[in-house]
Amino acid sequence: MCGVCGCGETTTISVEQDILSENKQYAKKNSQLFIEKNMLVINIMSSPGSGKTTLLTKTLSDLKNKLKSAVIVGDQQTECDANQLKSTGVDAIQINTGKVCHLDAHMIGHALEKLPINNDMTLFIENIGNLVCPVLFDLGEQYKVVMLSVTEGDNKPLKYPDMFHNADLVIINKIDLLPYVNFDMDECINNIYKVNAQAKVFKLSATTETGLQNWYDWLLISKSQAYVN
Amino acid sequence: MCGVCGCGETTTISVEQDILSENKQYAKKNSQLFIEKNMLVINIMSSPGSGKTTLLTKTLSDLKNKLKSAVIVGDQQTECDANQLKSTGVDAIQINTGKVCHLDAHMIGHALEKLPINNDMTLFIENIGNLVCPVLFDLGEQYKVVMLSVTEGDNKPLKYPDMFHNADLVIINKIDLLPYVNFDMDECINNIYKVNAQAKVFKLSATTETGLQNWYDWLLISKSQAYVN
Repeated sequence: MCGVCGCGETTTISVEQDILSENKQYAKKNSQLFIEKNMLVINIMSSPGSGKTTLLTKTLSDLKNKLKSAVIVGDQQTECDANQLKSTGVDAIQINTGKVCHLDAHMIGHALEKLPINNDMTLFIENIGNLVCPVLFDLGEQYKVVMLSVTEGDNKPLKYPDMFHNADLVIINKIDLLPYVNFDMDECINNIYKVNAQAKVFKLSATTETGLQNWYDWLLISKSQAYVN
Repeated sequence: MCGVCGCGETTTISVEQDILSENKQYAKKNSQLFIEKNMLVINIMSSPGSGKTTLLTKTLSDLKNKLKSAVIVGDQQTECDANQLKSTGVDAIQINTGKVCHLDAHMIGHALEKLPINNDMTLFIENIGNLVCPVLFDLGEQYKVVMLSVTEGDNKPLKYPDMFHNADLVIINKIDLLPYVNFDMDECINNIYKVNAQAKVFKLSATTETGLQNWYDWLLISKSQAYVN
């Protein structure tokens, strides 16, 4: 069972294919619901501590009158994130995955059963902090947003290419810390384009509320275009 | 194949047990070599961008005359880290894991075949940036060191408890950024102790070279005690 020298590789790959193909079926079911309800669904992924919850908390408050939102949030343990997100008045469901390193479409399907779903709502899925595994699992969402904070370094898009390659939008967060860290913004953006020439890139600081407008505009435009025939 | 509601759970668990039990065999083999050669072997794990490579680069330079060292470093892609580590004059081998989210004992076994191994040497293994999966895979090492940077937030030990529960040493890095981020050091240390009452904790900044002495002393003491009967 080795991904390095090839011995037993077939077994590993076939197990992985089974898991991913089963996940695809659940993702398709989720996606059908999202289309039926004309929902905008966004899967936000990043390393631990990049600022997903902080950005979402600001977003839910600031767009309260413009978007009907809800959140599904994943962590190995604790309800901290869901509690913080609920403080904005929005429904939030926490999924605790235990030892599992990603959200999958089946987990999302179960969370959707508990969430009050309305037509035209926007659903944010805050994935587990992990720059590797979550991107393998389609959740049925329309958009994958990948967040990178400037404290993590400008080479991360090259070191974790799958995540950035599959992003519709990359958010570079914590730009308020740029004066204190060794981070070359042009180099980082070049690195993103090297693995994903189509990616949209926004630079912002969720903590100091700098540069949020581009993100808000993108959300509102994406919502207005969701599943319009 | 669902880790949430239980359907097909047996299949998932048995596959996982096969993989982990096979890994254990390889880890045992690595461990036997480490004991035979009286090596100190340290597995360093963290989120992406916490500062593992920066700390290791300083460490290899500063302890050049006190430790005979080598490094095995894992990333999904790129040779950046190995190249940076080699600039200190120390042997470094890069493992590119492709889609795989962790180093395993079999990969380490292959890397050991390529590395000049000397008696009494210290081997640092820099794992893939991921606060979830690498801790599941024993590499045959003596010590697991987990690094957390203050930009990631003080609640991470509770949200990723497996990683911190299994750490022999937790390094809190980037303390030079404390004035600019919302991070409660006492709260963080309490959170580490909640999941691991035995953990040793060091606070440092690899970039500004603050607080490195505790880490160096710990390495030298650990080396002097390695496998002494």
